[in-house]
Amino acid sequence: MAPTAWIINIGTELTIGRIVNSNGAWLARELTLRGVRVRRIVCVPDDEREVVDVVRQALGSSDIVITTGGLGPTPDDRTAEFIAKALGVELVLHPEALRMVEEKYRAAGLELTEDRVKMAKLPRGARPIPNEVGTAPGIHVEVGGKHLFALPGVPREMEAMFRSYVLRVLEPLLPRLCVVEDGLPVVGVPESTLAPLLKEAQRLCTDCYIKSHPMGEELGRPYIEVKVMASAPTCDEARAKVGRVLEYLRSRVRPG
Amino acid sequence: MAPTAWIINIGTELTIGRIVNSNGAWLARELTLRGVRVRRIVCVPDDEREVVDVVRQALGSSDIVITTGGLGPTPDDRTAEFIAKALGVELVLHPEALRMVEEKYRAAGLELTEDRVKMAKLPRGARPIPNEVGTAPGIHVEVGGKHLFALPGVPREMEAMFRSYVLRVLEPLLPRLCVVEDGLPVVGVPESTLAPLLKEAQRLCTDCYIKSHPMGEELGRPYIEVKVMASAPTCDEARAKVGRVLEYLRSRVRPG
Repeated sequence: MAPTAWIINIGTELTIGRIVNSNGAWLARELTLRGVRVRRIVCVPDDEREVVDVVRQALGSSDIVITTGGLGPTPDDRTAEFIAKALGVELVLHPEALRMVEEKYRAAGLELTEDRVKMAKLPRGARPIPNEVGTAPGIHVEVGGKHLFALPGVPREMEAMFRSYVLRVLEPLLPRLCVVEDGLPVVGVPESTLAPLLKEAQRLCTDCYIKSHPMGEELGRPYIEVKVMASAPTCDEARAKVGRVLEYLRSRVRPG
Repeated sequence: MAPTAWIINIGTELTIGRIVNSNGAWLARELTLRGVRVRRIVCVPDDEREVVDVVRQALGSSDIVITTGGLGPTPDDRTAEFIAKALGVELVLHPEALRMVEEKYRAAGLELTEDRVKMAKLPRGARPIPNEVGTAPGIHVEVGGKHLFALPGVPREMEAMFRSYVLRVLEPLLPRLCVVEDGLPVVGVPESTLAPLLKEAQRLCTDCYIKSHPMGEELGRPYIEVKVMASAPTCDEARAKVGRVLEYLRSRVRPG
């Protein structure tokens, strides 16, 4: 069975619609292409009750939980505290995390203020994740065979930490699968006319992901992108599955 | 008390990271500026268990639930069915919805196929929402004083339906509040140096939303956008609150 994941993006800037959740999509893509099934991407505000609630739910529902945001030095950055609450453990100053933070600021000629020290406080039992790009360490917790990773909200920091740390930890859990995706643009056919062909295509490959994305107008200017994704032990097999579906659609779609 | 909302964006294209959830951010912004507190934005795949689960949780936790996606004619479009399951009611062919769908296709010279009729099947007790841009009607359910709206995933259709129908229904529930937002770019000050000033600013206006967005690098090239949002019975009062916070920050921030 493929491991499952929840992605939790923490920050009121997301739930007030000030920014679009590009971190969620980036992580979902990276995990999906490695055979992980992402079951939810959840944005929550910087609010204790909401974050504690969703972290608990995520840990109860999936193998991997990745959060982004709330690790910095400002008062709204409280993810470490919320995760500690969700796990029912204390928040403690982690010596290794403190060394990471201290080193960065010292090199910049800045002293360790209370707000900087805060970034080195982790839930008891957690490991700090080195931040190669910024200053706040990430957080890794292993609990009951599940992994929780708290990454920064700044995309460059988050992406670097995912690549250098998260993937390395997850490597042994990932299925030996190759995931392949390809697409077919369909011009001039309403989606409702395409529907029976998509059903038939799904029967040709029951475990393929086949999806039509209407980009134009159903009536008048129909334009649809059909995307097909498949996984298999080898990339050749995965490509063959996708190829069969696209071949079938190409041979049957008749622009009106 | 401000009404609360959950936004649920349905579609495996979101949880595989193929598309970024711009619908979620758009709806969150529209609701926030009208005084609604958005507690969650949740992306779920086209999967019965996941959608039923999150719809139930949303109805149990907030006053307003808005879903997007899954209303079209293709096999993966199953939102009406999932909402019916979540509510514990049957899916029934709605005469008014059927008329809406029939009218659109007839005008285009197309007959009513099974896949087109499907778009007129709603949970028992629901009302269809006219789709001015596309063909699939939306769904409005009132249950226990709460409102659930299922809107299409195509942004233009979703936005039009929100403006012409959802806002009209919500109007009497919205607080008589004006919401104002403004910002301040801060160049050359690390976020950890700004932190104590942000705490002080928050004390000046306890119900303001004050948030720092690090856009540069904490050490080396710090660049932060501080955003301040406030609401009040009148726009003048809301603007005054935001103004006081920005004025304080402007007077205290010293680029290093």
